[in-house]
Amino acid sequence: MKARGLVVMKFGGTSVADPEKILRAAERAVQARRRARGVVVVVSAPGEMTDELIGLAHRVSRDPDARELDALLATGEQMSIALFAMACRSHGARAISLTGPQAGILADERHTRSRILEIRPRKILQELASGKIVAVAGFQGVNAAADVTTLGRGGSDLTAVALAAVLKASHCEIFTDVKGVYTADPRIVPDARKIARISYEEMLELAGAGSQVMQARSIDLAHRYGVRIHVRSSFKPAPGTWIEKAGEGPMEEATVTSLALDKGEVRLTVVEVPDKPGVAARVIAELAERDISVDMIVQSAPTHAGVNDISLMTPRPGAEAAKAALETLSRSIGAKRVDLTEGVATITVVGTGFRRHAAIAAKMFGILAEAGINIHMIATSDLKLCCVVDSRHSESALRALHKAFGLARAPRGNPSKRRRRPC
Amino acid sequence: MKARGLVVMKFGGTSVADPEKILRAAERAVQARRRARGVVVVVSAPGEMTDELIGLAHRVSRDPDARELDALLATGEQMSIALFAMACRSHGARAISLTGPQAGILADERHTRSRILEIRPRKILQELASGKIVAVAGFQGVNAAADVTTLGRGGSDLTAVALAAVLKASHCEIFTDVKGVYTADPRIVPDARKIARISYEEMLELAGAGSQVMQARSIDLAHRYGVRIHVRSSFKPAPGTWIEKAGEGPMEEATVTSLALDKGEVRLTVVEVPDKPGVAARVIAELAERDISVDMIVQSAPTHAGVNDISLMTPRPGAEAAKAALETLSRSIGAKRVDLTEGVATITVVGTGFRRHAAIAAKMFGILAEAGINIHMIATSDLKLCCVVDSRHSESALRALHKAFGLARAPRGNPSKRRRRPC
Repeated sequence: MKARGLVVMKFGGTSVADPEKILRAAERAVQARRRARGVVVVVSAPGEMTDELIGLAHRVSRDPDARELDALLATGEQMSIALFAMACRSHGARAISLTGPQAGILADERHTRSRILEIRPRKILQELASGKIVAVAGFQGVNAAADVTTLGRGGSDLTAVALAAVLKASHCEIFTDVKGVYTADPRIVPDARKIARISYEEMLELAGAGSQVMQARSIDLAHRYGVRIHVRSSFKPAPGTWIEKAGEGPMEEATVTSLALDKGEVRLTVVEVPDKPGVAARVIAELAERDISVDMIVQSAPTHAGVNDISLMTPRPGAEAAKAALETLSRSIGAKRVDLTEGVATITVVGTGFRRHAAIAAKMFGILAEAGINIHMIATSDLKLCCVVDSRHSESALRALHKAFGLARAPRGNPSKRRRRPC
Repeated sequence: MKARGLVVMKFGGTSVADPEKILRAAERAVQARRRARGVVVVVSAPGEMTDELIGLAHRVSRDPDARELDALLATGEQMSIALFAMACRSHGARAISLTGPQAGILADERHTRSRILEIRPRKILQELASGKIVAVAGFQGVNAAADVTTLGRGGSDLTAVALAAVLKASHCEIFTDVKGVYTADPRIVPDARKIARISYEEMLELAGAGSQVMQARSIDLAHRYGVRIHVRSSFKPAPGTWIEKAGEGPMEEATVTSLALDKGEVRLTVVEVPDKPGVAARVIAELAERDISVDMIVQSAPTHAGVNDISLMTPRPGAEAAKAALETLSRSIGAKRVDLTEGVATITVVGTGFRRHAAIAAKMFGILAEAGINIHMIATSDLKLCCVVDSRHSESALRALHKAFGLARAPRGNPSKRRRRPC
């Protein structure tokens, strides 16, 4: 008998960028089919195709209609699933491709950033029951007008997690071009270690802190439905990182799991804001209305003159528009000016129990001070500690923290050190 | 009020090969919209995309599954229509794209060579009523299993003609990379003349004789539903050729409309076939069973030995397979051998009234004889005269016939000579 239940596997664009890669990915699905009760594969558009299609759209229209853009973008995943199903057959398995509409993925009206409302898996279950591998187009659904919609960034991961939830899969495998979640970016910290297990909560913080492995949206969905995720390499057979419920390990201890570095943001400071109730809220509302993402809001203590500074971090694209919006607001609330600071980066320490164990924050600030690195902003929660530092010092700061928190890869033959370590 | 009714316009792959061409094609649709009550546009996949997709399929599978191949191929037209609708909007018109399934094009189960069963135009009519240009994906339909199917070669023309029939359009415009139907291929006969009007019947004969302008299948459908077709250039504004009911002009006169040259076939001869009833039928049945297309079957008169030769023309791809099939048959019917002859070409004279006016056949054979060109095979009907000649003489033969039948372009200022001429 098959030991394992149903598995949902998701292959990203780099994993299906050309026919040879599609054949290799299909081979993994066919191997998994031998061990599992059933396999559903979610596939992204090949390589850079989505970006190329967006480029084409902008060559025929300055402001492409959202419905038509979705109809255009949906073709990328449709190509992938058809080729994927053919490739599965080449490896001797039966397989069928289903578009988002055919797979019963019902979504709302919001073209280019649609949300999944419901999945009606009748067709998928029918094809699984007949023994087929089912290749489902990621990133797409169908709205009430029978038009295809797309789910926005990270949409294929979302499709995979949502299918795993609805089909009660044993887990969801996310195949990608990295080997898993690391204690820090291995390009910056050469001895960074692959993490075997991480909690949904920690992974959410990492996603928020600039980690590119998975979008917060999919992790959040997996958390709510209890879908275990296995992030792993498309090209190597070794296990990757499991994202699952916290709970194992010493409960009361604080742990540091991973470090993240985000150089993609700038700092905006509204200078000399009158210290009156509701002013900070207005600043944030101003940006939220414009869909501008805001991170790390810090308000200084008021001066004797009854004013304070409000600083926040925001992604570089759109920062000028955010600054302009805040300048208009500044005039109406009587603030002095708005400063935009480039050349800053955010370092985030992700783990658990930080609120109960101030020692970790103290250690972080101590390490940075020792390295002569000035901290511009600080934000803390139970699961993360964030510092904004000068961008030019950020990589050496990351390496220093990685070493001081003992996250380095354990030498061979010492498996106990591979575990997450208490601090 | 709008003088004209509804118009169906079809743009082939070369007309939508890149964003600039799509914008130009869309501009024509938007201009037509100003004059017509409504415009439906049928669009092919851009440029060589269908061939590229078939190439990709063959890189993941030796024998791609037909359902998956259709799912893959359908993406080409889906891209075109989405971009086309965006481009119409860039020219200030309202527009919407509809896939074959969304447009209600119901087709049979036969993947990769599906036939249209019925069109349910509710959604198209609704969008037309709201004033939109409707861009429909050519070449595709949906079968009873809700899977997309493709209509085979010439499928987009077929979609356009079928929509024109169902929507009772005033006519169907086929935009292509040639300016219309010519009295002969202008690359071979420099003074060939664009034909203003041609009957369905003559056009069918031309399609059968190797003309690439339109497939016989679409012309046949147009004929049955009385859809007037206007074949014209995507890139030039001048009128092209109208394909419509015969009937105008001197009824009893024989006319020559156009010449066609087909170098894509070879001759197969079954040598010394016993002259018994039913043998020729078995030869043809043998090939028909294998879906091998056969043209110009000629049986020689029996010799004193009671045998005759059966010759036929067949397209070069597949000719070896046809030969092998005939060799097997030869053994069972007691024929001597099968010969395959390369280096032959078919010249076809298309017109009307040939059966009643043997003078035209006589003239054709006379011209060829005068030019010293040997005729290998002859086949005639009321609408065409075919001769198989040596390929190396075929182009000069074509020019000689074009001149002798007076088909050359009329000099400027002599419009009466632009008409089709009686012989």
